[in-house]
Amino acid sequence: MATCKAAVFVEVGEPLEIQEFPIPNVEPGGVLVKMDMAAVCATDVHNRYSPTCPRPMIFGHENIGVIDRLGKGVEKDVLGQPLKEGDRVIFRSTPCGRCFNCSIGENCQVVKNYGFITSDQPPHLRGGFGQYLYLDPSPWLLRIPDTMSNDRALMSVIGNHTVLNGIERIGGISLSDTVVVQGSGPIGMGALTQAKAAGANRVIVIGAPASRLELAREIGADDTIDIDEYRDPKQRVAKVKELTGGRGPDVVIECSGGNTAFQEGLEMVRVAGKFLVVGQLRDHGPQPPPITPFLITRKVLRLNGVISSKPHHIIRTVQMMNRVVKYPVEKLITHRFPLSDVNGAFESHETLEAMVAVVLPNA
Amino acid sequence: MATCKAAVFVEVGEPLEIQEFPIPNVEPGGVLVKMDMAAVCATDVHNRYSPTCPRPMIFGHENIGVIDRLGKGVEKDVLGQPLKEGDRVIFRSTPCGRCFNCSIGENCQVVKNYGFITSDQPPHLRGGFGQYLYLDPSPWLLRIPDTMSNDRALMSVIGNHTVLNGIERIGGISLSDTVVVQGSGPIGMGALTQAKAAGANRVIVIGAPASRLELAREIGADDTIDIDEYRDPKQRVAKVKELTGGRGPDVVIECSGGNTAFQEGLEMVRVAGKFLVVGQLRDHGPQPPPITPFLITRKVLRLNGVISSKPHHIIRTVQMMNRVVKYPVEKLITHRFPLSDVNGAFESHETLEAMVAVVLPNA
Amino acid sequence: MATCKAAVFVEVGEPLEIQEFPIPNVEPGGVLVKMDMAAVCATDVHNRYSPTCPRPMIFGHENIGVIDRLGKGVEKDVLGQPLKEGDRVIFRSTPCGRCFNCSIGENCQVVKNYGFITSDQPPHLRGGFGQYLYLDPSPWLLRIPDTMSNDRALMSVIGNHTVLNGIERIGGISLSDTVVVQGSGPIGMGALTQAKAAGANRVIVIGAPASRLELAREIGADDTIDIDEYRDPKQRVAKVKELTGGRGPDVVIECSGGNTAFQEGLEMVRVAGKFLVVGQLRDHGPQPPPITPFLITRKVLRLNGVISSKPHHIIRTVQMMNRVVKYPVEKLITHRFPLSDVNGAFESHETLEAMVAVVLPNA
Amino acid sequence: MATCKAAVFVEVGEPLEIQEFPIPNVEPGGVLVKMDMAAVCATDVHNRYSPTCPRPMIFGHENIGVIDRLGKGVEKDVLGQPLKEGDRVIFRSTPCGRCFNCSIGENCQVVKNYGFITSDQPPHLRGGFGQYLYLDPSPWLLRIPDTMSNDRALMSVIGNHTVLNGIERIGGISLSDTVVVQGSGPIGMGALTQAKAAGANRVIVIGAPASRLELAREIGADDTIDIDEYRDPKQRVAKVKELTGGRGPDVVIECSGGNTAFQEGLEMVRVAGKFLVVGQLRDHGPQPPPITPFLITRKVLRLNGVISSKPHHIIRTVQMMNRVVKYPVEKLITHRFPLSDVNGAFESHETLEAMVAVVLPNA
Repeated sequence: MATCKAAVFVEVGEPLEIQEFPIPNVEPGGVLVKMDMAAVCATDVHNRYSPTCPRPMIFGHENIGVIDRLGKGVEKDVLGQPLKEGDRVIFRSTPCGRCFNCSIGENCQVVKNYGFITSDQPPHLRGGFGQYLYLDPSPWLLRIPDTMSNDRALMSVIGNHTVLNGIERIGGISLSDTVVVQGSGPIGMGALTQAKAAGANRVIVIGAPASRLELAREIGADDTIDIDEYRDPKQRVAKVKELTGGRGPDVVIECSGGNTAFQEGLEMVRVAGKFLVVGQLRDHGPQPPPITPFLITRKVLRLNGVISSKPHHIIRTVQMMNRVVKYPVEKLITHRFPLSDVNGAFESHETLEAMVAVVLPNA
Repeated sequence: MATCKAAVFVEVGEPLEIQEFPIPNVEPGGVLVKMDMAAVCATDVHNRYSPTCPRPMIFGHENIGVIDRLGKGVEKDVLGQPLKEGDRVIFRSTPCGRCFNCSIGENCQVVKNYGFITSDQPPHLRGGFGQYLYLDPSPWLLRIPDTMSNDRALMSVIGNHTVLNGIERIGGISLSDTVVVQGSGPIGMGALTQAKAAGANRVIVIGAPASRLELAREIGADDTIDIDEYRDPKQRVAKVKELTGGRGPDVVIECSGGNTAFQEGLEMVRVAGKFLVVGQLRDHGPQPPPITPFLITRKVLRLNGVISSKPHHIIRTVQMMNRVVKYPVEKLITHRFPLSDVNGAFESHETLEAMVAVVLPNA
Repeated sequence: MATCKAAVFVEVGEPLEIQEFPIPNVEPGGVLVKMDMAAVCATDVHNRYSPTCPRPMIFGHENIGVIDRLGKGVEKDVLGQPLKEGDRVIFRSTPCGRCFNCSIGENCQVVKNYGFITSDQPPHLRGGFGQYLYLDPSPWLLRIPDTMSNDRALMSVIGNHTVLNGIERIGGISLSDTVVVQGSGPIGMGALTQAKAAGANRVIVIGAPASRLELAREIGADDTIDIDEYRDPKQRVAKVKELTGGRGPDVVIECSGGNTAFQEGLEMVRVAGKFLVVGQLRDHGPQPPPITPFLITRKVLRLNGVISSKPHHIIRTVQMMNRVVKYPVEKLITHRFPLSDVNGAFESHETLEAMVAVVLPNA
Repeated sequence: MATCKAAVFVEVGEPLEIQEFPIPNVEPGGVLVKMDMAAVCATDVHNRYSPTCPRPMIFGHENIGVIDRLGKGVEKDVLGQPLKEGDRVIFRSTPCGRCFNCSIGENCQVVKNYGFITSDQPPHLRGGFGQYLYLDPSPWLLRIPDTMSNDRALMSVIGNHTVLNGIERIGGISLSDTVVVQGSGPIGMGALTQAKAAGANRVIVIGAPASRLELAREIGADDTIDIDEYRDPKQRVAKVKELTGGRGPDVVIECSGGNTAFQEGLEMVRVAGKFLVVGQLRDHGPQPPPITPFLITRKVLRLNGVISSKPHHIIRTVQMMNRVVKYPVEKLITHRFPLSDVNGAFESHETLEAMVAVVLPNA
């Protein structure tokens, strides 16, 4: 039986371990994908240190691959385009469709996405940091346009789909909006990319280090505010007010996860403005930050939180990266690693050296 | 092997035929439902005369039943409530989750709902006009509250869920809206019920015959306009204007399917009003009605069409019928038939004698 | 020259002083109103103790009056109904229409509403706690329906219009929503009233003292939670979860202004729920409460703040109180005072003895 | 007394007549504007032939001018920027703020905009086709950014603000939407410009003559369909389907006013798509077109009509033209005329020779 390699999370805080797995046979409706690229996401890094994350697990949920074997009956992608072995695809697990969250159109409570399934049971290969990934029958599949590079395709599923989901929830970015993006990591870059694509008049990115802000300007940021320079939240709020004629931005998109970012956003945003809270994923522990909700009332604000995305957001971000965005977003992929050096990829992410670090499992 | 009876559409325009089918074994995830009630819907009547409707088919998609056998692994309903044999349920097929329509949150293009599946293949029993109905693995299930009568439960899935979907699409009925409902059939009654429940100031129902308008007033209509009396569309528009202080209603809900109804609605609705078009299901054939779209532009109108519903609309209509609606909506079920007289049920619908005619397959 | 009396805020923290003013002549477009009722609002009480509130000032912005003199050219109300002397009216100042806030459809930054204008300049009479109130040319006027009591009319402009504005901003209360109202003062009662009118399945009011919760149940609350009994925020969150099948309410409406209310609301509301923040009007001072914004992100929440209302909300609340709401909301007016005892009215509000205390300036 | 010239509509169908008027004194709050440019709009052309249009009237409602005299108390524009004589401005009349339409946030029923007021009463100068235009006290004013050409500024108020209002009403153009624009006149060009600015994946413009489609491609159209070539509506629908992979566009924006355009749009747009109806301004007379509303229901469409705009749309289109739009939209101004040849400007518009014809009243 043919085998392949994959990187497995086996112990909290320990390096991922390269293990060998049998390449599974493909049942009707299933699909075997040969992996091209998988990005290291902050969630992967977080999980690697989390005692509550089940293990063993093959991480990697931002993935680009090639159809290696198509199970019987899998003939078309979500857009109705014919599929064949050798096609590059983006894929997701299909939601259960019968839980409460599915019923209200939110993230399924039952089905886990690839990259979040333990590898102890066959077919084992359920995450992107492996040479192959096996998709259960009836997966959601989108063929990557032939005109599109793998790098661009990957950027569609890094940050961008979640941000697009969020932008939809705040009622869209309107033509000529001034937008502040808090955070200069991959999610912040997605927010910047989309705000510019949606016709924002001005996008101000707040973050660090300087190299990331430099990249932000390359992909369209009109202004950047370096938090290594503006260390006090009050200074940052003042700088944003100054850059927006004293009124504050129409939209703030929080992508930093920072402890003070939420309060800063409330203070920056203009009266009747919108505040999208994307980055606040982690519990603040025993000392949550002090917040003044009266700003929400007095400024008649609109706030939305968002996690993950719905399938149509992926369709849109792929098209957006393929045809709409003119900036060189592929430059955001700063580091590339073979599967054997998957732990190097994680390290480059943890040190903030990399903006986006990817693993090329079959390189 | 035990058998049961069901009414089958075998020939265009002919009476449904009572046939005998084996009662299927229940596979893991599947559910066998013993039918309590199934309503005759205009769609069933339409299909019975349609050469393009596949056959043989057991009609009946507005259904209330009792769980007869629960397949292995089916433990909870959509709200997380435990399920057991003997529980009354409302059910739907689960959407595929991977077609374009599923991806954008619209009606699945792939999976058919029960009542629209041919009966030539096992397990045969796929529509409400039979003693049993078999649900494929992983169906969508909602337990009917114990405090709720079958009649009330059935009303939740007659017209109401589609109307609720539509009301959501037009951005809701606002407190104190004046609403015109065009049409006094079951869908119109659903629109009336929900407009009142949502806090409409005044609901005007336009329809016929007089007996239906009488029923409309019993379940809350503030005014009715009898089209047997106001025969000319111009008269109906004038009457609505008179009843609304010359301004026209805030919302019009078209539930009649009538040839002139769309144009009447455009003429009635106030400037910046909303127009929900529910009833225009059928092609108008070679002579579509003349329409003046400039009213849409000049009156800055908002229009939405709607078909069917999403699962959460069913959850809501059941709760609404159980606790919110105080009017005696169960009176809308005017005619009841045993399975052996299913054709009588269809006839009572076709002659407009019945508001809602139901079949009690195990009575 | 004829004179009349009004209660004037002259010194911080001191009782309002009854002063005598000339009854002004009415210029073209202006209107002289003879006051029927003016309610004491929490804002009035707050301003009476505020060193930053300009003075002298006649408070009173929740007003019902009678047209005493109609200036030349004032012929119709906002609905186009003819106006004459003797008509009861609700009124507002007309926004400037050319500031930024007016341009985006928010509260005018330039024109103050009656009850917030100093009384040192003629025509002096600009607040509700006086026998007459003078409206500048081109006021916004709504004739009170003849079928409607003054009490019901007054309730339309207490809490309700602001809450309606807020409900619109969160995208409406949907049929069968479960709603938690935090706070059992007049704003909370407005939220309760509207949630019931809009077809909520269940409304849970959290507040105190017991007498207010008793009133809440009389006007439709399905459940109440007494904060004198459930003293710890965790207990209140747990009780709400219990009452909502573990899932949490679809909607939370914060009307309490309490220091911990915002965080409690975040913890109560269900995944993908809505949170309207009405009561957080005051700065929390040097010690703002600790808040966990990750709940906004993880629960994909929608939040909106709201202050005041737009004119169409008043049109709607008047209709709602006149025809839609069946509960005895007039019972919320628990205390009535002559103008000479205006300070008694304030006291009954400050002690929480009164739910709504009104002054009858010409009684 | 100093005088100036203006072009007056004096008789139906006759050439505009150049007349001389006194230059008015400026009262407190008023503003005298010296006109730079005024565009000929289809509405002006329509009104010139309309027996119901009041006269005498100075047309011209798409205007750019310079502040000649500032009345006492006019100190800032809508954004709070200081104003002085010599500043270039865009202006509108201020809505009444107290009619029903103002109360619901729609176009004022009372106050007419400049270009639609008869010139028989002082100060006479109320339209753009004159050397001066007098603004009544408290006008709405927006200073044109110094970095912006008159041509770009004018394009902000031609088509674009109305289209932006409409796009807002359909819930925005989403990133990567495919958009069909019906009509290749100035409004269609506005729709094209904004769809591209908002991140549309592909914009298809349907119109004629070929020279206009050439211009459309220059300012960003991805595809054009020439109705001189595709003469049958069925051909146009088929071509759009072909260009959109058989599915139809996500959004259709009707800007043509054509008799069959509405039905074509219904046929083109995809399931659950959006249809903005901007161009259907004129009554279709005794023979309105046949329309099939069942497409609205079956395709679960969303439609909105729109006329004119709200002030904030102008703020946005000016910013958009100044900073967001990179295409050479100023090329759309194809013809320029002195005031003495105002009738030549109208002729160039009527023959479709000009895309946008402007009059330079002081050239």
